[in-house]
Amino acid sequence: MADAVQKWGMFEAAFAGPKGGNPFVDVTLDVDFTFGARSAPAPGFYDGDGVYRVRFMPDTEGDWTFRTRSNVPALDGLTGAFRCGPPGEGNHGPVRVRDRVHFAHADGKPFFPFGTTCYAWTHQPLAMQRETLATMRASGFNKLRMAVFPKHYVFNENEPLHDVYERRDDGELDFDRPNVAAFRHFETQVAALRDIGVEADVIVFHPYDRWGYCDMLPDQDDRYVRYLVARLGAHRNVWWSLANEYDFLIDVKPIERWDRFFHIIEENDPARHLKSIHNGEETMNFDHRKPWVDHVCIQNWNVKRTADWRREWGKPIVNDECEYEGDISLAWGNLTAAELTHRFWVTVTRGGYAGHGECYAHPQDLLWWAKGGVLRGESWRRIAFLRSIVEEDVARGLTPAPPDEWPWQRVSCASEGDYRLIYFGEHQPALWAAGLPADDRTVDVDVIDAWAMTVAPARRVPCPIYPRLRQRGGAWTEPKPAAAFAVALDPKPYQAIRIRPAR
Amino acid sequence: MADAVQKWGMFEAAFAGPKGGNPFVDVTLDVDFTFGARSAPAPGFYDGDGVYRVRFMPDTEGDWTFRTRSNVPALDGLTGAFRCGPPGEGNHGPVRVRDRVHFAHADGKPFFPFGTTCYAWTHQPLAMQRETLATMRASGFNKLRMAVFPKHYVFNENEPLHDVYERRDDGELDFDRPNVAAFRHFETQVAALRDIGVEADVIVFHPYDRWGYCDMLPDQDDRYVRYLVARLGAHRNVWWSLANEYDFLIDVKPIERWDRFFHIIEENDPARHLKSIHNGEETMNFDHRKPWVDHVCIQNWNVKRTADWRREWGKPIVNDECEYEGDISLAWGNLTAAELTHRFWVTVTRGGYAGHGECYAHPQDLLWWAKGGVLRGESWRRIAFLRSIVEEDVARGLTPAPPDEWPWQRVSCASEGDYRLIYFGEHQPALWAAGLPADDRTVDVDVIDAWAMTVAPARRVPCPIYPRLRQRGGAWTEPKPAAAFAVALDPKPYQAIRIRPAR
Repeated sequence: MADAVQKWGMFEAAFAGPKGGNPFVDVTLDVDFTFGARSAPAPGFYDGDGVYRVRFMPDTEGDWTFRTRSNVPALDGLTGAFRCGPPGEGNHGPVRVRDRVHFAHADGKPFFPFGTTCYAWTHQPLAMQRETLATMRASGFNKLRMAVFPKHYVFNENEPLHDVYERRDDGELDFDRPNVAAFRHFETQVAALRDIGVEADVIVFHPYDRWGYCDMLPDQDDRYVRYLVARLGAHRNVWWSLANEYDFLIDVKPIERWDRFFHIIEENDPARHLKSIHNGEETMNFDHRKPWVDHVCIQNWNVKRTADWRREWGKPIVNDECEYEGDISLAWGNLTAAELTHRFWVTVTRGGYAGHGECYAHPQDLLWWAKGGVLRGESWRRIAFLRSIVEEDVARGLTPAPPDEWPWQRVSCASEGDYRLIYFGEHQPALWAAGLPADDRTVDVDVIDAWAMTVAPARRVPCPIYPRLRQRGGAWTEPKPAAAFAVALDPKPYQAIRIRPAR
Repeated sequence: MADAVQKWGMFEAAFAGPKGGNPFVDVTLDVDFTFGARSAPAPGFYDGDGVYRVRFMPDTEGDWTFRTRSNVPALDGLTGAFRCGPPGEGNHGPVRVRDRVHFAHADGKPFFPFGTTCYAWTHQPLAMQRETLATMRASGFNKLRMAVFPKHYVFNENEPLHDVYERRDDGELDFDRPNVAAFRHFETQVAALRDIGVEADVIVFHPYDRWGYCDMLPDQDDRYVRYLVARLGAHRNVWWSLANEYDFLIDVKPIERWDRFFHIIEENDPARHLKSIHNGEETMNFDHRKPWVDHVCIQNWNVKRTADWRREWGKPIVNDECEYEGDISLAWGNLTAAELTHRFWVTVTRGGYAGHGECYAHPQDLLWWAKGGVLRGESWRRIAFLRSIVEEDVARGLTPAPPDEWPWQRVSCASEGDYRLIYFGEHQPALWAAGLPADDRTVDVDVIDAWAMTVAPARRVPCPIYPRLRQRGGAWTEPKPAAAFAVALDPKPYQAIRIRPAR
């Protein structure tokens, strides 16, 4: 038995089965994968033309076997085996939550999400999809939000490359028959992202619809979720984003339906990919404390609240819509590049992760945020710079300074051990001491310009000694320096101080 | 009987009385002012050297009489009369709350607070005080936060011009004997501000102390408040700010004490000047719903919440510390000028009022925020520009667009009748339609650059027609233009659109 698949790679088996009736609905197929005494059930799926498949992402090296279960004799009790070998280069396994509020790949490599958004990129012409992949490769983004269903919205009026369901003879979509070509294409693009190191944050439902995908029947929704998970769950770079703006669908899919979708994924995803759900209105957060929500995906412009959210929810915070860079007439899509860069820095230095989007008006409506293509803005390279800053030193994840402690409500600060980033944003101190270390010999200190993307050794100056001051309760401060030294800065916005152990 | 005093001017009478013992404590003096059947009691006060005074701000033209009450026979039952004439030029009377969330002078002239802060300016050398008044006159600010007590704090280590209490033979302050010279000087400067059209937002208590003013006994605090009100209450431009950062004094002055101070002012201020109280920590707002709080004075950087606060408290919002322009190492005092200007615009276009402060480090510690002198920053002239924009058109006050309605969470908008200001701030639409009118013939529309201080007629372009979009609940939008026209803008931050009836 040769190595058939690498660890966290995708094993796939195909079986011949019935073509008649509606195999998508009529035929059940589940496959139990076994490693020693351990068994992991995975869902099979119908791939058209009488072909049934099962996919599985093995997480342990060695010999696996499997056995099918089906309501169709021809598909029941089939067995097979494969050997799982070591992961290949660049394969670090799926991303998990680690340390409660951060992420890491299964092999322990930290994952700091610096994502962007091209909701409908897989529904655009293929040349544009190639362009999107090339842009992604060069951009520095490591996560992409993308929807299974096509998008009907402002600047999004073109027909999709594929219908997601087959059309009946009368031309209507048949929501009982997935279009396997559409899913194959979607999988191809998820795999293409995997190959360039990008996590696919797969949006299962969204409200931007004119085809009827929003209004499928509950049974159809349930079967769709299971089918999607069966096809995609063995791709290691998949994240499940149950919705974009779930609350805009709340009348047709109330909360208990969303819970059910989470459960269907849990039941059918032995790889246990990350699951989250994204809100529309600022006040309509899902109850992210539910145990089936792995991390908090939100839309919120008020990024200085990031550390509060982290404390409230106790899960990783990914603010995938802290508004987008652009110039369109819709207020979520017309931030200056400086402001979106700033919001990334604030989010990261308050212990969270942010998402990018870009919405510059275009004569052919080719906006990155929806269709991909090329980036026209200025924030993306600053975000890549921030990613490089974080990845250069952070081992597991940043912890924000307590947001209710002076002065960290006003400026942002996060640490990991002796490493610390203090970000000033709209503040422009000419001198700074708070949060600097007590010993000046053991640290390197740099000043970072988040906009100019420069790093320079800090100018150390004597720490000012402030007078004895009356405190609450009548106690007095001692007139001693707050740190071993202060840092002198040029008064301008968007600067940070980085402190790290001397090298 | 000649016109002795103008309406909302200050009538003053002096009486000879006992010098022995401690007249500040031993002698009571109250004076009943009478106009027809109406009687208004006002407190008298000891002014040293056996002289007792009473001051009164008449609010009705005609003949007033008064009669004293005292526990000292020489001061009891004294009577007098004066005629109150019409107000002089520039005298619009004290500022009151109007329309629940706005302000107006007693004669109906609207008052839109555009204030600044020089906490300890009356305690600096006289030449600097003259400089402060000259700067105020030229600045465009119409309110000044200023403390009765001197200030001990970072950059504030000099001794005050006057002790606020007399010193005993042992050199210690005698908190039973106000220093009348200090109060006279303070009154002189309040009157000087009145004469240049500036409201004095008088801070009664604050925690920045090394002399012991914070730690007077409760009886001494109560007598101090009454004394201050007796001396200053007839100055029409006085506002009572019970504290700066009251919560930093909460251990020595718990909530019931602050309520008591409000009540002492109510009991002794027939002119009923505005009363408020300012918090330190963001989460430590006083309960501004209490009926003795006239308006909400807060410290909070999160200015996009202004309309929420207005709705929650139901009173005028004056955010007197949305952080200050400057470059010092303290994070409340190092905003860029652009950011403070921006926060003023956001506050005003969300129905509130903001306060300015300036904290540029100076070799002699001459920071405007504490000592006055000269302004060195860049926001003050933009704030004056904003004031001119508001005063040019607004009759009574701006009402914010509902903060939970699209898109007014993200960009800011406030109206008065057919007048509307839409402020984009960090947003940079190249095209805008939301909130524009349905009829393009009846309005003037301008684009304002809040930073460059320019106003130019808007470039009107056809309003885009967005596609039919699925709404919550399955309804669909109609594909019709949102307004009669859209406005084309250069994508850059800090712009506003002004709409007003055609002239």
